[in-house]
Amino acid sequence: MITREECAALDAVDPLAAFRKEFALPDGVVYLDGNSLGALPARTPGRVRQVVEEEWGRELIRSWNEAGWFEQPYRLGQRIAPLIGAEPDEVVVCDTTSVNLFKVLTAALRLRPGRRTVLGDGAAFPTDLYIAEGVTALFEGARSVLVTPEELDRHLDGDVAAVVLSHVDYRTGELLDMPGITARVQAAGALMIWDVCHSVGALPVELGAAGADFAVGCTYKYLNGGPGSPAFLHVARRHLAAGPQQPLSGWFGHARPFAFEPGYDPKDGIGRFLTSSPSLLGQAALESSLDVWERADLAAVRAKSLALTDLFITLVEGLDGIEVATPREHARRGSQVALRHADGYPVVQALIERGVIGDFRAPDLMRFGFTPLYLSHTDVWDAAQQLAEVLESGEWREERFSRRGEVT
Amino acid sequence: MITREECAALDAVDPLAAFRKEFALPDGVVYLDGNSLGALPARTPGRVRQVVEEEWGRELIRSWNEAGWFEQPYRLGQRIAPLIGAEPDEVVVCDTTSVNLFKVLTAALRLRPGRRTVLGDGAAFPTDLYIAEGVTALFEGARSVLVTPEELDRHLDGDVAAVVLSHVDYRTGELLDMPGITARVQAAGALMIWDVCHSVGALPVELGAAGADFAVGCTYKYLNGGPGSPAFLHVARRHLAAGPQQPLSGWFGHARPFAFEPGYDPKDGIGRFLTSSPSLLGQAALESSLDVWERADLAAVRAKSLALTDLFITLVEGLDGIEVATPREHARRGSQVALRHADGYPVVQALIERGVIGDFRAPDLMRFGFTPLYLSHTDVWDAAQQLAEVLESGEWREERFSRRGEVT
Repeated sequence: MITREECAALDAVDPLAAFRKEFALPDGVVYLDGNSLGALPARTPGRVRQVVEEEWGRELIRSWNEAGWFEQPYRLGQRIAPLIGAEPDEVVVCDTTSVNLFKVLTAALRLRPGRRTVLGDGAAFPTDLYIAEGVTALFEGARSVLVTPEELDRHLDGDVAAVVLSHVDYRTGELLDMPGITARVQAAGALMIWDVCHSVGALPVELGAAGADFAVGCTYKYLNGGPGSPAFLHVARRHLAAGPQQPLSGWFGHARPFAFEPGYDPKDGIGRFLTSSPSLLGQAALESSLDVWERADLAAVRAKSLALTDLFITLVEGLDGIEVATPREHARRGSQVALRHADGYPVVQALIERGVIGDFRAPDLMRFGFTPLYLSHTDVWDAAQQLAEVLESGEWREERFSRRGEVT
Repeated sequence: MITREECAALDAVDPLAAFRKEFALPDGVVYLDGNSLGALPARTPGRVRQVVEEEWGRELIRSWNEAGWFEQPYRLGQRIAPLIGAEPDEVVVCDTTSVNLFKVLTAALRLRPGRRTVLGDGAAFPTDLYIAEGVTALFEGARSVLVTPEELDRHLDGDVAAVVLSHVDYRTGELLDMPGITARVQAAGALMIWDVCHSVGALPVELGAAGADFAVGCTYKYLNGGPGSPAFLHVARRHLAAGPQQPLSGWFGHARPFAFEPGYDPKDGIGRFLTSSPSLLGQAALESSLDVWERADLAAVRAKSLALTDLFITLVEGLDGIEVATPREHARRGSQVALRHADGYPVVQALIERGVIGDFRAPDLMRFGFTPLYLSHTDVWDAAQQLAEVLESGEWREERFSRRGEVT
């Protein structure tokens, strides 16, 4: 078995090691929940303070023009584009993932008149499924059907307008074959919408190379944009050229928002997917996080992510009661490791008390996210060691570890 | 004419004078654009810093439970309720005004099956009209029709499902008769949706007393929640009891969001109007602003607002080229004064250079918002004096004042 010293040796030659100081992590914590809420970049408090005290407090309304508040949704979209393999004019930052999925899925159904089925992964993060229900309820005769990715092909008939899938499964961390699935969906005449919440910032996402039609994603996981930071959406240029119609037609999507015309006339391009005023504080935090991402090499991120998840799997498989739920094959793995344990909830709570923060998803999954920018091999070794001690000691059986908060 | 000394005497007995120190306004500025973007409360930077550095940075994912992030949309809604004359369980804070109007208008159309017309004020803030277009496009045979408030009654036929009106006109500052209009709309069998963006925090809004069905509003104007701060929505209890269906059915509106069930089952009550993760930074800023509002007496706010707008009108009417567009009758006036001037744009720019910040709306309206919590009678006198000097000197004719930014 690999030793802590060997991990330290790997850290010494880690090309991403310098990124650790870009994050303000608390002492004594190994944070393995960056797949849920990313850590605070060290530069973010200063940037947020600047927006609050200077742009808002001192410059007031003038900042809409002078601080470039209007361009922020586009500018942030342009900076996210390389992280998802998209063109800069295909991405915009706004609203939340759910709201953005509502927009692109409605636009997709309108691009496929006569087709009335939306396929979703029944195991996907449920908000995508709920939104698909919400959208299809608005189209006469439309329905959303839940399938597994494995069953997808036999459901791809001539009635399927769109398919919504998570690039990485939020529970198991399984990574889907984006190019292969996209090609098969499109061959059936349907449109492919990817939810990249659990892959953006975790690995190189290649929406353009895969020929994806639409994508949505959040920025508060691997991108470290902060709690409730604004989401993004992607629309392929070929669809933008056709003038897709999204239903949340607010004034920020209008061709001339300050002409205050009574009729809606959408902007050309990705701007027509905007609805209303952006959250400037949330965008400021995201902006400072993207300053960090700008210097990160995604190939190095992916290589380290696989090394860390490999290491963790190696260290924990065989522990008492543990079953690894995440695929071993690199091509099928995101940047998290999910472990099944019959009493996963109290085990995770006991680990948190020891400073190793992961989370739990019912019925039995302990999730551990590995964020290459701020985790080291030694951190992974320490986390595995703590897990071994929790299981060996049986301390997780203490009653207090079974009391549940709302986020479980 | 009233003198500056007389204004100072009024300030000396102003019961709201102590609120001025609650705001971090820059020196040398009379800020008359709080109807567009409210000023920074002095306590807000500290509260935002706490959320960023402690709740996010130090406590990380644990803050969802421990810092009460989940309850925040409800808690903030409960605190806005008294400002709009609503019950605490009728209001929730989330998303943007446009997105929230989309939700309540769709719910309203579903509550009036068979009716297919939405009436809106053609002079209302256009995003409401654009959203009404977006919603009606999703209902077979539905249409949105623009009328003036004066024409409303003769359009209230049996096909009208809902009426959307701004309580205060964003251009002229005209205040509509909320109880009277609501009663007439409901007598015709339609539902009344009020946009209170330009009245909340400016005057006592009495949605409950008026029997309104739904309302939406923003928090970045008179409520001082900060740029792009989250909006709110109101649904009358009688409608909540009937289980209204809103289309943006994301996981935060689910009865059991952490059960991760594949099918959507909305919460009981106002929570079913939530969609997804709130912007915690934006909510933190709003929270600190509501700390200030909690101590403000709305009757005193209204009295001072009328006194300030009366004063401004008295001081500026008769100035060269100026026509007062705002109603003189108190019952028909919000908290802003709009002045028509053929060259309003450069006049406003020249005023801004002198430290009096108002704004301009095409074709000829100069808008001045009067926020009783941080403006004094002396401020109003100074602003009127500066306007007189700008007009008298003709300095606004200098070419640089005609160059336009995006916000005009």
